[in-house]
Amino acid sequence: MTENDRQELLEQIKWTEDGLIPVVAQDYQSKDILMFAWMNREAFSLTISEQRAIYWSRSRQKIWRKGEESGHIQQLKEVFIDCDQDVIVLKVEQIGGIACHTGRRSCFYRKLEEGVWQTVEAVVKNPNEIYHK
Amino acid sequence: MTENDRQELLEQIKWTEDGLIPVVAQDYQSKDILMFAWMNREAFSLTISEQRAIYWSRSRQKIWRKGEESGHIQQLKEVFIDCDQDVIVLKVEQIGGIACHTGRRSCFYRKLEEGVWQTVEAVVKNPNEIYHK
Repeated sequence: MTENDRQELLEQIKWTEDGLIPVVAQDYQSKDILMFAWMNREAFSLTISEQRAIYWSRSRQKIWRKGEESGHIQQLKEVFIDCDQDVIVLKVEQIGGIACHTGRRSCFYRKLEEGVWQTVEAVVKNPNEIYHK
Repeated sequence: MTENDRQELLEQIKWTEDGLIPVVAQDYQSKDILMFAWMNREAFSLTISEQRAIYWSRSRQKIWRKGEESGHIQQLKEVFIDCDQDVIVLKVEQIGGIACHTGRRSCFYRKLEEGVWQTVEAVVKNPNEIYHK
């Protein structure tokens, strides 16, 4: 992609006032929703050029190369944008099968059951074994 | 659910400063991601009590009973929340098979192909036939 093409692509996205766009990561095979995060222009550009999910961490205010510590990177399969061009869906291959920092497959492991949030998904790997701090 | 239980449930959700939470609607059978929207406390409470997706329209600044004009309501099957308790996934049955105001099954009908957003999903029904304005 030329620099012009990249700029044009970025301009077609409707960024928030903070220059961000919400992103949903979905497993390209199981179609499970894995996680939700945000991208800025740089993160989006890096995601496309490196073909792996790279987000903008709003809490740390920096580029977040998903899997940089855990090794659980998300290889890019497909990118979709919605009708308003203000939300992105990434279809990814979740390396290691773990998207959540709690060591679970997906971040959406709590289900509303009889009025309370019940944990319905087991930890695949102890976070202490994932993040060697 | 008692009023106390409802309040407790609402308090467990991490709302934005504007009192909102992002919501992803997913088809409970195909697992396709249908749309992305927001809820405030009232919308979330109504969604649970009426067992259909009710959002907060940020553009119109009012409760948005998905399907109120089109009839394409989203019947609630399951509700999930993520690890940070600040994003919700609804598994829904999309009545009419059309979630998008463009008359498509899903709002995520544009796919990034060779650097451009390509429309990869056909219109199921002409919006003029859906919205009788």
